[in-house]
Amino acid sequence: MSDAGVVRRAVVLLSGGLDSATALAEARQAGFECHALSFDYGQRHRHELDAARRVAESLSAARHVVVPLDLRAIGGSALTADIDVPKHRSAAEMGDGIPATYVPARNSVFLAVALGWAETLGAFDLFIGVNAIDFSGYPDCRPEFIAAFETLAQLATQAGVEGRGTFRIHTPLISLTKAEIIRRGNELGVDFGLTHSCYDPGPEGRPCGACDSCLLRARGFAEAGLADPALARG
Amino acid sequence: MSDAGVVRRAVVLLSGGLDSATALAEARQAGFECHALSFDYGQRHRHELDAARRVAESLSAARHVVVPLDLRAIGGSALTADIDVPKHRSAAEMGDGIPATYVPARNSVFLAVALGWAETLGAFDLFIGVNAIDFSGYPDCRPEFIAAFETLAQLATQAGVEGRGTFRIHTPLISLTKAEIIRRGNELGVDFGLTHSCYDPGPEGRPCGACDSCLLRARGFAEAGLADPALARG
Repeated sequence: MSDAGVVRRAVVLLSGGLDSATALAEARQAGFECHALSFDYGQRHRHELDAARRVAESLSAARHVVVPLDLRAIGGSALTADIDVPKHRSAAEMGDGIPATYVPARNSVFLAVALGWAETLGAFDLFIGVNAIDFSGYPDCRPEFIAAFETLAQLATQAGVEGRGTFRIHTPLISLTKAEIIRRGNELGVDFGLTHSCYDPGPEGRPCGACDSCLLRARGFAEAGLADPALARG
Repeated sequence: MSDAGVVRRAVVLLSGGLDSATALAEARQAGFECHALSFDYGQRHRHELDAARRVAESLSAARHVVVPLDLRAIGGSALTADIDVPKHRSAAEMGDGIPATYVPARNSVFLAVALGWAETLGAFDLFIGVNAIDFSGYPDCRPEFIAAFETLAQLATQAGVEGRGTFRIHTPLISLTKAEIIRRGNELGVDFGLTHSCYDPGPEGRPCGACDSCLLRARGFAEAGLADPALARG
């Protein structure tokens, strides 16, 4: 809530991973009433949706909605089709091209639904935990993509066309390393023990420890000089 | 198929209405192998999905996929929430502002999923039957919106970023009147008797005859000097 007592709402994309948890904490810190949005898109790591629920609750989101959207119908990714998740890749390998876990147009789809929800809520602020530093090379995590979506949002909506406000896509993590994200999340009170990062979890959501997402997470905690509370629990 | 025998694929958004049926016919006429995409998004006129299936088959789409995406979770429209569909509006009333049947960010969401499917198919051509003349005032049916999405598509995808091609959003109907669309569809062999336009159908999908979509359709057939075969059948 702002000083004037007016509720400022934001829609926050929440995957259940540590980046989006930190983005939610940033939105809360900035004074927004947070409406968290997750997708059940046929991801093999659907376990992350339980994590998203726990994170939304622990960071006092006003609401958490899980939208069913079965992207397996269009396939094309190791996360939604019968393609192996790459394992044990080095930092150099991760830096070389776009991996099989890329889900075609995923952030475009997620942001478009978030935009629709924002419009029904009277909100103009969207948060997404994309990161262009310690990331997996996805095209839709880059600042150019975010800027293009901001332009689109204004033209795509009744609220934008009627000039009721200016849509803004907030990317508080875009220029942070994974270690910096973890430190910042800690400062903001994120319980990383509630988050889930693994692309290819075993029974009970146990992380594989070898996919890009597990490796980036482990490296981030190591560089931040912190223990990963999710591992401590596991 | 092109002269060189290379298959050129396109993703065509297909609602089951007469505009998207004509857009599909245009894509086929242009030589594309057509991959038709519909959404089960919680619309009250879900009957249109049966029409989409019939249209896709009659116009020889290579494939027709219906993606479940429950937009009722975000509400905000007479088509997906418990809000009355406006009836018996005059042309002047339809021209005045954006009606309750506007679904927030719908075409952004639909195009984003279409983009993802295009990428998995190796396609760079998307067809959408938007129309900025005899339309209901939706912001995401205007040329500015389409241009912004084209820019986004290039930045959002691996195929775009790697320069494998240029995404193009085809809008063959954007500057036609409803009567012109109907005449063009007729030329291209569209069977409009298979299409469904009504926002608020009765039992067995019978059109209400009073919503904007029914009124625009009736006016279009009248102006084209043709009988609506869907009514003849009803």
